[in-house]
Amino acid sequence: MVSGVTKDAILEILDFIHKAVELINDFEKENMVNTLLEARKEGRRIFIVGAGRSGLVAKAFAMRLLHLGFNVYVIGETILPPMNKGDILVAVSGSGRTKTVVTVAEAAKSLGAKIIALTTYPESPLGKLADVIVRIPGRTKLATEEDYIIRQVIGVHEPLAPLGTLFEATTLIFLDGLVVELMNKLGVSESELREKHANIE
Amino acid sequence: MVSGVTKDAILEILDFIHKAVELINDFEKENMVNTLLEARKEGRRIFIVGAGRSGLVAKAFAMRLLHLGFNVYVIGETILPPMNKGDILVAVSGSGRTKTVVTVAEAAKSLGAKIIALTTYPESPLGKLADVIVRIPGRTKLATEEDYIIRQVIGVHEPLAPLGTLFEATTLIFLDGLVVELMNKLGVSESELREKHANIE
Amino acid sequence: MVSGVTKDAILEILDFIHKAVELINDFEKENMVNTLLEARKEGRRIFIVGAGRSGLVAKAFAMRLLHLGFNVYVIGETILPPMNKGDILVAVSGSGRTKTVVTVAEAAKSLGAKIIALTTYPESPLGKLADVIVRIPGRTKLATEEDYIIRQVIGVHEPLAPLGTLFEATTLIFLDGLVVELMNKLGVSESELREKHANIE
Amino acid sequence: MVSGVTKDAILEILDFIHKAVELINDFEKENMVNTLLEARKEGRRIFIVGAGRSGLVAKAFAMRLLHLGFNVYVIGETILPPMNKGDILVAVSGSGRTKTVVTVAEAAKSLGAKIIALTTYPESPLGKLADVIVRIPGRTKLATEEDYIIRQVIGVHEPLAPLGTLFEATTLIFLDGLVVELMNKLGVSESELREKHANIE
Repeated sequence: MVSGVTKDAILEILDFIHKAVELINDFEKENMVNTLLEARKEGRRIFIVGAGRSGLVAKAFAMRLLHLGFNVYVIGETILPPMNKGDILVAVSGSGRTKTVVTVAEAAKSLGAKIIALTTYPESPLGKLADVIVRIPGRTKLATEEDYIIRQVIGVHEPLAPLGTLFEATTLIFLDGLVVELMNKLGVSESELREKHANIE
Repeated sequence: MVSGVTKDAILEILDFIHKAVELINDFEKENMVNTLLEARKEGRRIFIVGAGRSGLVAKAFAMRLLHLGFNVYVIGETILPPMNKGDILVAVSGSGRTKTVVTVAEAAKSLGAKIIALTTYPESPLGKLADVIVRIPGRTKLATEEDYIIRQVIGVHEPLAPLGTLFEATTLIFLDGLVVELMNKLGVSESELREKHANIE
Repeated sequence: MVSGVTKDAILEILDFIHKAVELINDFEKENMVNTLLEARKEGRRIFIVGAGRSGLVAKAFAMRLLHLGFNVYVIGETILPPMNKGDILVAVSGSGRTKTVVTVAEAAKSLGAKIIALTTYPESPLGKLADVIVRIPGRTKLATEEDYIIRQVIGVHEPLAPLGTLFEATTLIFLDGLVVELMNKLGVSESELREKHANIE
Repeated sequence: MVSGVTKDAILEILDFIHKAVELINDFEKENMVNTLLEARKEGRRIFIVGAGRSGLVAKAFAMRLLHLGFNVYVIGETILPPMNKGDILVAVSGSGRTKTVVTVAEAAKSLGAKIIALTTYPESPLGKLADVIVRIPGRTKLATEEDYIIRQVIGVHEPLAPLGTLFEATTLIFLDGLVVELMNKLGVSESELREKHANIE
């Protein structure tokens, strides 16, 4: 069994996610699910954007959307079709201030896309652009932010996990849970997911 | 508070990680930590490889190694120097059979690099190439594998989370815990990490 | 006007491409065009693979295939559906020996895909796997190869441009010419291309 | 020998590059070379940015800078250290208006970095931010631009090659020529480049 600081940090992260999930607003989650399902039914494209580790979490979700049969694309990759009115942008940014993410969200807005934002800060530039917000408790990499949400969750002490770790891990697990709900609502089985999984790597 | 299938799946994932972490071998973890720290002291390069969602988890770890002051590179990205004898390859593959990952590990072996493998299957092709293995309980995307480790962890029922989700989430959280141990052993503070964090995205 | 070594090198590269294009086999080019057009008509997927600078050239071609209305994907990127029998793999490797490219080509072969290889060496491992070869004169990054084709093109002296530059530049320009032929044969205008161009970056 | 439209388009592209190179300002090229060499001597980091096919051209240059011994990084990839005062941003954008590129250039400016811009339009937002501009004749993907420079080069007719092809190809070949000048000025041989080339793909 893993011991030492690694174990302490893992338990802290798991405990954080546990409490954080309780703070995620069910209505916001429903809103995200319905927006995605409606977009899928109407044949809309889903675009995914995020920077750094939040971008990796966003890409992990993009892969599952692909397996679920969505038309999904990642901003910054080679295969990127145009965005049209009614398409969806899913943007992940703990601080809601990541410049390239906000720039993409502004462009998406002007093209008539709907923006789903996963962020800790609904009052951030990204949050203000979003049509659907899912507030994910976390702690951002910014030193100057007042990370009230994290204090609400883990109390006053400084967490062991550095920078955006808690936001990123919480967002990954939340989105992995959401995938199961999407499977359920779409009536898609695991073996149907597997049929859409890459087989060439 | 999040409800419904999303909640059930999140709780199952968290519960799985909790139990899985108890199964991770402390000696294997120590071995990985020491191998990384020694490589850093000797100025070795760390190369990271993984495909699909395991690749994203690997990249999330790569970013933290960068913040910790390691010379770290990701196979497949633009900036990729040569690998020399004594360098490290960190390979993430639940099944241990992902073809491109095994190909890279074979090449690394022939160049005299040391391989750290995070995999569920120590007897897999990747596992057999590895100098350091950290066995991560999980369930792979392969239908035909005998996923005994998952049964050991969550019992006989099928998990809600599809395909490799449990392996990927467990590996991410494990590595995030490991990062805290590395910070600790290196005497690196969060604000020193922040100073090495990208500031241009 | 640009002077000095830069100018000399540019003129040499342009001169090389000029002569190299004369050596590209028209039948091989036709074969590639027809294979792509047939795949498009039958709704097949096109997968693209390459490493290093050859990989970048391959991606530049992938973008134009997207603009032309092909179902195209890049190995190693997030959005990667499964490959099916009858799909196409376009592989770019000057030496034809790049390990990860050959590994992907082998996997593609076993899945029943057709392989189009752009390489200098038809007798290489990649060349032997290919269903359609387009031989691109070049000089590979390998020191030990007998680069007869380059000598045929520019004579006995060593070129100024290092490593695989001549292969990569020739392949880019060749594929950009091929795109115009595909536009022509598909009756697609530039403004129709523009409609499929990314608008969000 | 390649025939038909492919051949016509290739010859047109080569002819364009030939004429375009004559229009590239030698002083601007010198300025770029000196800025890069000085940055290397001072141990500065070079960051590379571009979107779409221009981004691929930028990455091809980044690889050669790595082989030449520069500390070079690509915006948007996993391994991205912070940018400091005195570092260099090399930005490639034909139109000079690509939103994410301009956003990154603005951020770089505010961090005290020097910006080298390769663009057709010195009066564009990117051009105005740049410390060093190299004007590359081309034709952008924008319909509404007055592409005077292209008319200057190829006359009044519409080129066969669509969208930004001429800019991208010209920039690639120009930068490949510049690499030879950098090799020359640094006294770096091809075999020294090869020693810094990736060996694991």
